[in-house]
Amino acid sequence: MRPGVAPLSARSPRVVAARRLHRRRERDGTGLFLAEGPQAAREAGGHVVELFGTADALTTYPDVIAAAGAARISTVTPAVLASIAETVAPQGLVAVCRHLDVPLDRVTAHRSALVAVLVEVRDPGNAGTVLRTADAAGAGAVVFAGDAVDPYNGKAVRASAGSLFHVDVVRAGEPLAVVAALRAAGYTVLAADGYGPVLLDDAPLRAPIAWLFGSEAHGLPAVVADAAHARVRVPIHGRAESLNLAAAAALCLYAGARAHRSEEPPA
Amino acid sequence: MRPGVAPLSARSPRVVAARRLHRRRERDGTGLFLAEGPQAAREAGGHVVELFGTADALTTYPDVIAAAGAARISTVTPAVLASIAETVAPQGLVAVCRHLDVPLDRVTAHRSALVAVLVEVRDPGNAGTVLRTADAAGAGAVVFAGDAVDPYNGKAVRASAGSLFHVDVVRAGEPLAVVAALRAAGYTVLAADGYGPVLLDDAPLRAPIAWLFGSEAHGLPAVVADAAHARVRVPIHGRAESLNLAAAAALCLYAGARAHRSEEPPA
Repeated sequence: MRPGVAPLSARSPRVVAARRLHRRRERDGTGLFLAEGPQAAREAGGHVVELFGTADALTTYPDVIAAAGAARISTVTPAVLASIAETVAPQGLVAVCRHLDVPLDRVTAHRSALVAVLVEVRDPGNAGTVLRTADAAGAGAVVFAGDAVDPYNGKAVRASAGSLFHVDVVRAGEPLAVVAALRAAGYTVLAADGYGPVLLDDAPLRAPIAWLFGSEAHGLPAVVADAAHARVRVPIHGRAESLNLAAAAALCLYAGARAHRSEEPPA
Repeated sequence: MRPGVAPLSARSPRVVAARRLHRRRERDGTGLFLAEGPQAAREAGGHVVELFGTADALTTYPDVIAAAGAARISTVTPAVLASIAETVAPQGLVAVCRHLDVPLDRVTAHRSALVAVLVEVRDPGNAGTVLRTADAAGAGAVVFAGDAVDPYNGKAVRASAGSLFHVDVVRAGEPLAVVAALRAAGYTVLAADGYGPVLLDDAPLRAPIAWLFGSEAHGLPAVVADAAHARVRVPIHGRAESLNLAAAAALCLYAGARAHRSEEPPA
């Protein structure tokens, strides 16, 4: 433990408040969420408001403390840390972070060349994975539209592998309003749809591009897919019925990235 | 229940034997595994040796019984079925299936244009997802090499979404021996490696192609990656450190499929 600092007890109000952030209602009410482990806490940087760590971890990761800037640093015992964390091995650190989503206006004003829109995707692992893939493909923003999973859900945060802190995250309401706003801002809006009439290789990949992805269970609502410029399918060459969301999103987003890059003048 | 057929009890030797297939040792020893739900049981077709079903399910899915051919049909109560299934809602059916893997020789003799090799991939969900993606991309075979997850693990079977029954599955030993056999058979062997020197767009995508994928935690062992013709990386355009296995495999396998198809003479 740090010199002169007694560790917080399991019943300390701040520990109790942190633990409550496992619940969506509490995250929504406070505008806070948890990022577990040194890598996520480091990426969270200026979004961290409080960093809980075991004495060992706080000694081992001074860079995380530095990245957290003005955040409060709280020493806890391994048992108390385990009570705050959702994962079994958060390597001694859990950061309480401020929500970082931005309004859709900001995305349309910036005109990121590539945007992913998750429409009613409810599985946090899938949502986090698409966030990570969108970041890798160079997307500037990921929009959670409709009755979607909370991007600050612990499992989504972990599946995003830090990408939650790299791209603009938007929590939007009605998916049709999102599509209309993106179209009005000049986006080519493409619906990823296993039954779409347009093959990915033939899709109108003109930047800026916004890809719409639906839930693995239900796909995109028809009315939302129809509001896009095109309903695009990844070809199935074998006997699989479909691709899972992570695979389909990777292929669509990278196709978008490739088209955009080939439009750029040579450096 | 079917006329004149009493449901098997929870302690019936056949029910007990089926339940034991949750364990790898038992699957390895008997050469059997479980496929849960009507869709998987239907796809398993001639590989089914016994079909456990509730009376309702056996009435609802006569096509599954027909697909199972000469398999023994066993009526059980919903409670007994639940005790055999690993999933909460297998829709009243669990099929006991024979292992269906083939030797690597068969794959090299057929020269499937596209093959995926999982090297020491231990997560069953990841392995099943890559199986599904490989099938969708048109791969003819998926090889489990080294100390890999059992392809007949319940979670792997479910994540494959039926693709376990569509492609040739190989359980191979030493990954280096697999690479040597594929090279000797004329395959272009490509290692998917986040730190590889060759970009995916520049990879030597000459069919037949075998892609090597490592575990999400450790990647490919260096000695295995070095044995390939090239170590190939998917470009990261944003700030993500890497892609998850499902996303990387989708991009690599579909790039292989695209190159292969563009080599084909027009129909």
